[in-house]
Amino acid sequence: MASQRQHFFNLDNMEQGLFRQLTDDISTRIFPGDQAMLSVVRVAPNAKGTLHQHPEEQWGVMLEGSAIRLQGGEEIEVKKGDFWRTPGGVEHSVIGGPEGAVILDVFSPPREEYRISGSGFGDGA
Amino acid sequence: MASQRQHFFNLDNMEQGLFRQLTDDISTRIFPGDQAMLSVVRVAPNAKGTLHQHPEEQWGVMLEGSAIRLQGGEEIEVKKGDFWRTPGGVEHSVIGGPEGAVILDVFSPPREEYRISGSGFGDGA
Repeated sequence: MASQRQHFFNLDNMEQGLFRQLTDDISTRIFPGDQAMLSVVRVAPNAKGTLHQHPEEQWGVMLEGSAIRLQGGEEIEVKKGDFWRTPGGVEHSVIGGPEGAVILDVFSPPREEYRISGSGFGDGA
Repeated sequence: MASQRQHFFNLDNMEQGLFRQLTDDISTRIFPGDQAMLSVVRVAPNAKGTLHQHPEEQWGVMLEGSAIRLQGGEEIEVKKGDFWRTPGGVEHSVIGGPEGAVILDVFSPPREEYRISGSGFGDGA
């Protein structure tokens, strides 16, 4: 039987995960599971994401830096240690703070379109 | 319509979440969603959890400190920045490192028995 070590990763190991370029200044590494999918997102200083939505629930955890979270028409400042839930179907995006941000996103269920490397937020966004 | 701010939290705000005492030396604050559930676990130095399993998929992220992860009969050292997936049905536990640990756990789907405050790992464990 395969070792459980196959399921162990590190947030800063850029060799791990499926690379995805979300915009010129925002990239992520995707780790798909059976029921959930993790995404370690790096946002350059002041970089702007694209407003989008999807039916999957999403959680975000600010690991480093700060950002403005755009969600459901509101702009909410978030800093290291903050985390949030984005219900399915709620439009959202992010704008990196002056030092940028590292954000851990969780999708549940997994976003099927993120199971392979690629670019963009999915569905053309 | 309620503000999206209701979905925003902080890892260190001990007033937030549903408190659960897992053992005398391990406690958590649970944040239930529709498709996933987050759990911010604080493990005292050298504290030992109880081996248990559940059908829900689990992910863990080491936010602070270190630990030994017991999973599927293996013992794997984990430190800040490491994260791991525990497939449903795989027996697991944790032993805190010399300075203890803060671990973010994700359950998908949510563990129904954790939707209310209480004690223990569920199912008597």
